[in-house]
Formats: sequence, C-alpha cells, structure tokens
Amino acid sequence: MKIGVLGTGMVGNTIATKLVELGHDVKMGARSADNEKATNWAKEAGSNASNGTFADAASFGELVFVCTSGLGTMPALESTGTALDGKVVIDISNPLDFSKGMPPTLFVSNDDSLGEQVQRRFPNAKVVKSLNTINCNLMVDASRVPGEHTVFVSGNDAQAKKQVESILREWFGHKHIVDLGDISTARGTESYLHLWLRLWGALGTPDFNVHVVRAPAT
Amino acid sequence: MKIGVLGTGMVGNTIATKLVELGHDVKMGARSADNEKATNWAKEAGSNASNGTFADAASFGELVFVCTSGLGTMPALESTGTALDGKVVIDISNPLDFSKGMPPTLFVSNDDSLGEQVQRRFPNAKVVKSLNTINCNLMVDASRVPGEHTVFVSGNDAQAKKQVESILREWFGHKHIVDLGDISTARGTESYLHLWLRLWGALGTPDFNVHVVRAPAT
Repeated sequence: MKIGVLGTGMVGNTIATKLVELGHDVKMGARSADNEKATNWAKEAGSNASNGTFADAASFGELVFVCTSGLGTMPALESTGTALDGKVVIDISNPLDFSKGMPPTLFVSNDDSLGEQVQRRFPNAKVVKSLNTINCNLMVDASRVPGEHTVFVSGNDAQAKKQVESILREWFGHKHIVDLGDISTARGTESYLHLWLRLWGALGTPDFNVHVVRAPAT
Repeated sequence: MKIGVLGTGMVGNTIATKLVELGHDVKMGARSADNEKATNWAKEAGSNASNGTFADAASFGELVFVCTSGLGTMPALESTGTALDGKVVIDISNPLDFSKGMPPTLFVSNDDSLGEQVQRRFPNAKVVKSLNTINCNLMVDASRVPGEHTVFVSGNDAQAKKQVESILREWFGHKHIVDLGDISTARGTESYLHLWLRLWGALGTPDFNVHVVRAPAT
C-alpha cells in the first residue's frame, strides 16, 4: 500500500520504518524536499522508502499518518492543499506545548482538540485520532508491554475507524481497541497525556500502557 | 477512627456509608447542620453516623474525605477555618463544569488542578488526591471490576500518601496503587476525566477502570 508519513521526528521515523518493514511503499514528508532527516531515512530504509515535502507525502499516500509535533501539525497539513480529500488520515499528534517548561501543557484542550481542529480544517478527510496515548515504539509493537492493553480510535467515519482498527491489530499487534466515538472524543485521549506524562515520571519508563477493564455485563 | 466526609451527593453517601460499615465514626458535612440529605443519611446509617456543617465534619474527623462536587469544593472548605490543619485530607472531587452542556469541561486544568488549589489554600493540610478516576461504587469496592486495575495518589506528604494507600488497600480492596508524585500530578488524574467520560459513553457502564501495565524492567 502507498502510505504517506508526515513528520521526521521519533514518531514519524518509527512508524515509517515499521511500515516499510511490513512491505509498504512509504514516503516521509517534511517541510522541504531536501530535509536531511527525511533524506537520510529514505536512504537507509530501502527501496520502498522515499521522501519529499508534506504535500508530496500527502499526495503519494492512499493512507496518511500525521506524526508531526503538535505545534507542527496544522502548518504541515496547510501545505497539502486538497491531497487529503477522501483519504483516511491517522492523526497521532498531540497538542503538547513545551514553551512553558516541563511538564508540557496542551495548547488546545478541554472544549476542543487537535483532532477536531484537523477534521474541521479538512472536512473531506477521514480523520481518525489514534495511537497518541502510547510511546512510539509501543505504537508499532504492542508486544513490548505484556498482556492486554488498550488503544483508542476517535473519528466521524465508521468505515475509516474499522480500517484503522485492522491496521492496529494486524500490522502493529494491538489486541484491545476501544472505539470512543466521534472525533470530539479525541479530547479524551489528548487530555490523557497529562496522566501519561506523570506515569512516565512515576514508572521511569515510557514502555507502559493502560488496559481498560470493565465489570461483566449484567 | 473518627472521619469527616464533606458532601452529601452520591460520592459522599457511598464513601460515608462504607466507612460506617467498616466500624468507623463518621460525620457527614453539608452547607447547613439541618441539611435534609445528611440528616436522613445519619438516621439510616446507624449509631456511628452523624451529620453537621462542613466545619463540624472537618473538626470531627481525624481524617477528612472531600466528596463535594467540584464547584462546591472550595466554598465548602472555606467554611472549615483551621479544622483541616495537620490532617490528612483525601480529595476525591473533580473540577467538572456542567454549565456548558454535556460532556462537561473542567473549570481548572492544564497548568493547575483543583487538588493544587486546595493544597495552596490550606498549606497545613496534608492533601492527597485520590479515587477521582473511578465511579464511587468502585471506589469503595475494587472487586466490582475483576482482576487488577489501578488507582492513583498525588500529594506532597509521603507519610500521608502511605496512609491513604493503606486505606485504599485495606478498607476498599484496591490492589494496584501508583504514587504519581507531588500534588501537581493531580493534573494528570483530573484531566483523565475527559477520557473517563468518553469511556463511560463507549462502554455503557461506569463500572470500569484502567490497569497500568508496563514492560518488565530491563
């Protein structure tokens, strides 16, 4: 499958590398076509890997992963024109603001979310917020944390969410997926970052997740 | 043990009733000494149960549970004078604002929390934020949800947190407790409410929790 990955940081790199390993044709998008990180990645990742601008990667992909830093998400997407129209866009980015020191705050929260902002700006894209609640190594290999644990999907398009659930399950090994509802439920997973950050501090490792467990139906 | 429970809603009622069942002397606090809900509760709950004002309950308790609605927390505590000084105060309240419709937003979040506000206002109290991530029935009976699942403590006083951990374990049956750190980590558990609310919607029951699972230490 032809897949665009927007973002050259740890998340973009990890996702793009895994997708190439799975046999997909992957184009990594960056601000410029000669971005050093993206160029180096494409060189090392093999013949199925290429790189270009955000617009190039968005046009290339039948499916697009948004792996930009939160503050970079809207600027990156703005440059893609209509390339996302009709496509499933998996938004992994979190609205983290590091400008006020650590731990970061969220630059959109409470009554809105970055996922919603993306969907509003690109109404013809099928935005699915997912994977933003776990570390990138765990995103692409659920078995790093033993047993069952949960990832979430939020989005307005039921079929797009089903496709993303299959990807999470079959490509990345996630066993327990909860469909939270429409894209406004991205507020839930983005706000969870506050707890995730503190858990990282308390546990001393980013290799953790939560498993949602419920009482048996009565 | 003499325990004050501030709040007459579902959370206060559930906590206070469980504490009486465990053999403790419990005074439920309300805005007025003749509050109907608190008076009725005290009548029904038995000879170890009594009621009074918020100040009465705060003075009575060697230990105090804050079970007010979020918007009611600071007004309730303001009326207690110096009664909380030196005491362990378990703050269960969440800063939920229902005034803008459902789902609620948080009236303090992101770079502050209600737990921190309480601790700042009452610097001589040993505030421990806990139990605010689960439904009240589950708070007092962890076995409602099978297997292991996690509750959190946040607070500045290590000994107070240890005492609260014992209470969670021995009185309420919680098996897995994570100490997130100082009271500022209450931002994590209070922000998690956004996810909790959406999970409630998706699962169709409030009888659920998350279990924090991590990779084995390497």
